[in-house]
Amino acid sequence: MSYQIGEKIRVTIFGQSHSEAIGAVIDGIPAGIRLDTDKIRAHMQRRAPGRDRFSTPRRETDEPEIISGLSDGITCGAPICAVIKNTNTKSSDYESLKYLPRPGHSDFAAFMKYGGANDIRGGGQFSGRMTAPLCFAGAVCMQLLEEDGIFVGAHIAKIHGVSDEAFDAANVEKNLLDGLKNKPFAVISDAQGEKMKAEIAKAKENLDSVGGVIECAVLGMPPGIGGALFDGLEGCISKAVFGIPAVKGIEFGAGFAAADMYGSENNDSFYFAENGKVKTRTNNHGGILGGISSGMPLIFRTAVKPTPSIACTQKTVNLKTGTEEKLKITGRHDPCIVHRAVPAVESAAAIAILDKMRG
Amino acid sequence: MSYQIGEKIRVTIFGQSHSEAIGAVIDGIPAGIRLDTDKIRAHMQRRAPGRDRFSTPRRETDEPEIISGLSDGITCGAPICAVIKNTNTKSSDYESLKYLPRPGHSDFAAFMKYGGANDIRGGGQFSGRMTAPLCFAGAVCMQLLEEDGIFVGAHIAKIHGVSDEAFDAANVEKNLLDGLKNKPFAVISDAQGEKMKAEIAKAKENLDSVGGVIECAVLGMPPGIGGALFDGLEGCISKAVFGIPAVKGIEFGAGFAAADMYGSENNDSFYFAENGKVKTRTNNHGGILGGISSGMPLIFRTAVKPTPSIACTQKTVNLKTGTEEKLKITGRHDPCIVHRAVPAVESAAAIAILDKMRG
Amino acid sequence: MSYQIGEKIRVTIFGQSHSEAIGAVIDGIPAGIRLDTDKIRAHMQRRAPGRDRFSTPRRETDEPEIISGLSDGITCGAPICAVIKNTNTKSSDYESLKYLPRPGHSDFAAFMKYGGANDIRGGGQFSGRMTAPLCFAGAVCMQLLEEDGIFVGAHIAKIHGVSDEAFDAANVEKNLLDGLKNKPFAVISDAQGEKMKAEIAKAKENLDSVGGVIECAVLGMPPGIGGALFDGLEGCISKAVFGIPAVKGIEFGAGFAAADMYGSENNDSFYFAENGKVKTRTNNHGGILGGISSGMPLIFRTAVKPTPSIACTQKTVNLKTGTEEKLKITGRHDPCIVHRAVPAVESAAAIAILDKMRG
Amino acid sequence: MSYQIGEKIRVTIFGQSHSEAIGAVIDGIPAGIRLDTDKIRAHMQRRAPGRDRFSTPRRETDEPEIISGLSDGITCGAPICAVIKNTNTKSSDYESLKYLPRPGHSDFAAFMKYGGANDIRGGGQFSGRMTAPLCFAGAVCMQLLEEDGIFVGAHIAKIHGVSDEAFDAANVEKNLLDGLKNKPFAVISDAQGEKMKAEIAKAKENLDSVGGVIECAVLGMPPGIGGALFDGLEGCISKAVFGIPAVKGIEFGAGFAAADMYGSENNDSFYFAENGKVKTRTNNHGGILGGISSGMPLIFRTAVKPTPSIACTQKTVNLKTGTEEKLKITGRHDPCIVHRAVPAVESAAAIAILDKMRG
Repeated sequence: MSYQIGEKIRVTIFGQSHSEAIGAVIDGIPAGIRLDTDKIRAHMQRRAPGRDRFSTPRRETDEPEIISGLSDGITCGAPICAVIKNTNTKSSDYESLKYLPRPGHSDFAAFMKYGGANDIRGGGQFSGRMTAPLCFAGAVCMQLLEEDGIFVGAHIAKIHGVSDEAFDAANVEKNLLDGLKNKPFAVISDAQGEKMKAEIAKAKENLDSVGGVIECAVLGMPPGIGGALFDGLEGCISKAVFGIPAVKGIEFGAGFAAADMYGSENNDSFYFAENGKVKTRTNNHGGILGGISSGMPLIFRTAVKPTPSIACTQKTVNLKTGTEEKLKITGRHDPCIVHRAVPAVESAAAIAILDKMRG
Repeated sequence: MSYQIGEKIRVTIFGQSHSEAIGAVIDGIPAGIRLDTDKIRAHMQRRAPGRDRFSTPRRETDEPEIISGLSDGITCGAPICAVIKNTNTKSSDYESLKYLPRPGHSDFAAFMKYGGANDIRGGGQFSGRMTAPLCFAGAVCMQLLEEDGIFVGAHIAKIHGVSDEAFDAANVEKNLLDGLKNKPFAVISDAQGEKMKAEIAKAKENLDSVGGVIECAVLGMPPGIGGALFDGLEGCISKAVFGIPAVKGIEFGAGFAAADMYGSENNDSFYFAENGKVKTRTNNHGGILGGISSGMPLIFRTAVKPTPSIACTQKTVNLKTGTEEKLKITGRHDPCIVHRAVPAVESAAAIAILDKMRG
Repeated sequence: MSYQIGEKIRVTIFGQSHSEAIGAVIDGIPAGIRLDTDKIRAHMQRRAPGRDRFSTPRRETDEPEIISGLSDGITCGAPICAVIKNTNTKSSDYESLKYLPRPGHSDFAAFMKYGGANDIRGGGQFSGRMTAPLCFAGAVCMQLLEEDGIFVGAHIAKIHGVSDEAFDAANVEKNLLDGLKNKPFAVISDAQGEKMKAEIAKAKENLDSVGGVIECAVLGMPPGIGGALFDGLEGCISKAVFGIPAVKGIEFGAGFAAADMYGSENNDSFYFAENGKVKTRTNNHGGILGGISSGMPLIFRTAVKPTPSIACTQKTVNLKTGTEEKLKITGRHDPCIVHRAVPAVESAAAIAILDKMRG
Repeated sequence: MSYQIGEKIRVTIFGQSHSEAIGAVIDGIPAGIRLDTDKIRAHMQRRAPGRDRFSTPRRETDEPEIISGLSDGITCGAPICAVIKNTNTKSSDYESLKYLPRPGHSDFAAFMKYGGANDIRGGGQFSGRMTAPLCFAGAVCMQLLEEDGIFVGAHIAKIHGVSDEAFDAANVEKNLLDGLKNKPFAVISDAQGEKMKAEIAKAKENLDSVGGVIECAVLGMPPGIGGALFDGLEGCISKAVFGIPAVKGIEFGAGFAAADMYGSENNDSFYFAENGKVKTRTNNHGGILGGISSGMPLIFRTAVKPTPSIACTQKTVNLKTGTEEKLKITGRHDPCIVHRAVPAVESAAAIAILDKMRG
């Protein structure tokens, strides 16, 4: 469904990096809910550009204007449409790129898909900027989830080989997630965070970039959400998370590590917790069994590739002249987008999960 | 859409492990195509049970009966429905399990979702047996893809820590894929394959099980297939692949390894091949840029957890009595399903890609 | 979605008139419900062929075999698949028709769509026989609706100009609907029914056919089901009802007659009924306001064209030779299908409404 | 899919009568097309309010602002979002209506659906104003259809019992449709048009309203578009047309009149036209056979009920106090919306047909 995801909660994202505006339409939000616009704004600010020395100097207020779906600030059952203006665009930077696809970017593939009619300015609809409306939609969904006692939070698990402490998968606490949201650089171990920043600084100095891994937890999921086969939580969350540009992998629970384990190690034994709830002592299943939530924390990790826009000279082809050329990308780019992608990953997860909750 | 996937090619899977039959309905296949039932059967036999010493002793002929969609063996535009009888069921094995959820299985989560009304026999709709109709649908889709010069093939990349040679991502050849399909144990290096089998044998002896990784390649994809955001190939393929029970992770191209790379390493430079086609020298992008095919081999790896059904004693809870119990699973189970999952992974990829090709 | 309808309750229909079988997959039925197969069978028998002197002599038992979705006769959450064998097929009747499209039939349009690869035998997937699986699905949905106190029933409102009494739109009673289901010829006024039968007999004698109108009522709908714009009940019911071959029109409440009325006549005043419920004194809105149920009886009428298969000589073209030809259709056909379409209309309505109820 | 329609061309409509803006997102329009904004504007002006003495005095410029999907005025493959500001809103008119549902309006049904949280101002998302974004989307789709030689046009077939000449179903010409689009009151017979206007004027004088019928033709459809069962053109067009508020019926070709005909009258004989094309002499099938286009003009009629907002005193209930009350609606309303609905019907048809063309 291309620019749309979800069945009960349907999020449609529109816009390009340099179109007049970008935005999202959210259909399926029940009537009668007061949207907490401060919370929405706070969530969106976590991914907004131009806030630290590692981010693109492009500054956008990223202020969502809600133009439909509310009556006196309360949802009325009509789709919620939010529009975010693109104000600080420098389209001239991109003209020369039309026939010179940037390595690691969508340029060449989009050229082939659209016969050259794609919007090259700022990466068009392939831009990381499209995660701004995703974060708007995610913030709305997170508010509804929180009213059901479900909390989504993530941290930077790794940047260029430097790892943060991992979540304690069977025992993640809401406090930890809350704390991470208030940090400008979302790591559990600030010491490791400093090492990560050093990696980013070094890459920036070398006109290069770095990637990383984001680990996300969803707490408070009741057991019984999701389903067999294509209704499984893993597939639905993946579909949403891969909607974030630069994501190249996802794993749930033990994930790829399970390939090295015995069944007797990987299986999580059940027990009754003090409140009578069924829990597992370990959480290799990442809160999902048979595609359905088990009630344990839902845990996944997602791989983010290094920003493809790097300032050092690269080899590419000229699609017009048919010759090979050297390319030096100018413009404003991030040496690392992992930290800015943290709220985007949370948003994708929230959208997918709320959809399944209402399914 | 729960038991269905796809927009233009819609595959609906039905049945439970011990229902009268399982099957698939494929809607969207063009009229006028003669289905090669020998090829379909051959593909399905690669995952059929009871063929080697590592597989469940449950023997099923897994013969698909095509009951609609053909006229004189040629597609007529109506949906293709194939039914596979469940003949060799032993439902009495499962009665005692209803309130004793097996660790690592869907049992507990399904119990909570369905209020105990789920079909516990053989794992119901959560059974690995559901990959039989998936393979039927995959075989049909692969035939159509092959007519467009697109080939899907996979190998066992790892079992319990023992790795096969990896695909040479920028240069996978059709010959290699063809060869893998003819091997009863789909590895590139037979020597490594023997070591894997030794791991499986050891696990079986210990009443235990092992997992692994499957690497899949899709050759011949024209550039320009897929799209931005939720239309991306990664998300669509993931949705299909996570439909296979026991899959817990997926990565495209360099995947999680990209988290340790510089942009200058991870970016794949473009060049003109001898035939004038645009190619990349390396293939860290796994044939997908901006969610769209680049024309390079599409490469992904998927993690398969160890079979949760193990014969050694495990701890669980009794959902009826509220007490903790020890559980010893009897019945017929595989100590490893990775090798049988190879055609299922190919099938999921073929279904997702054909859908996008027609999108 | 071609052979599928619904979002929460998804019904996929497969098969052709002369394929090995026809059937339906119903996805979304909750677990834990015992299906009343006697009721299903009774509903299906109302449309089964070969039961009266006006129906095609093709005799089919139309016995649905439920091959998935049940565990001990109780729904388990997996899709319900029912298969109905095609036993009494006479395919040789149709060979000569491939290039001679029958006037009023799908033949020519299907030939153009499928490039001649469509299944011409018995009309293929365009056959009225496809309403057998529709009735199966409808019977399942009606059972669920009835558990919520919602009843669907229809009568033959008109055949070839002869009208039955109309429903008293604001006061239809369940007794009346129950009575109609037990009549072999579903009319309110048996006297008018006899006149209708005379019309059918006369048409048959003249090797001709007649059409009619079916009026359907849905009782017990709670107010608040449906929605604005494309979520409206009228559109959703229409989509399902036009899935029945030969349907060419539909109107809700006063329908086309509203074009001749003043707003002051057409508007239905609200009042409080004795039980405190809000009702309207008249029911020109047919139980739907703004696309949403009002709680009043939902009333619609649907036009069924005369059976296009008539035995008298007709003019057509030969698509192979490019000449005009005369055509005399042999085979087994109904001079009127209106009475057999009554349960099909009820079924389409039930499927659409249950989907909206779960929406 | 509630506020969305279509599979390949997906139109999502958002907004309420008095929200900050209304608009549409169109996903699936190919890249590389220059949108003719003059034509879009001209089409939208045909339904814009405040242009004649019969329309609501609410004046809106109805100027669509295209905020995404274009690059230099040319489609780039990203969704097209158009926003139409709501400037001339008088919300105070509606406050008193919250608990006093207007007869014939969505008010009561929406109150029950949304628990009173629906946006009562101007009818919220149930307002006829929502046809403005529908007309935007329709204009875009009509431009694409016209590039394929397909033309959609409609006329007022009836207002309060006064009928226009009908289309000559087998021989509608493009000239006629073009002429109708240039008329402020779209009738074939201007004399009948004057009588219709007299009916509207009389209703207005009596603080009453009138309804009517719109007849729509689609010329140039190639044969072979649409499909069996739920893929049929009738169902898909109906779903879109019933998205227009106040539509209560639809019929294709002979429609309800077929109920009074013999098969031998209703069947349309095939012949070869001079250009070798297969045509039918009559067009009772309305250009659709078996749900698929035959290549003949596609003809349908749709019933529009009298505007429910009438200024004379009506009876209703007070949902707060539980008493019956008299209601006198103030505010700005149309005594007839049939003429303004003409471009909305064309738009709905264009959206549905383009979607099927790309299916």
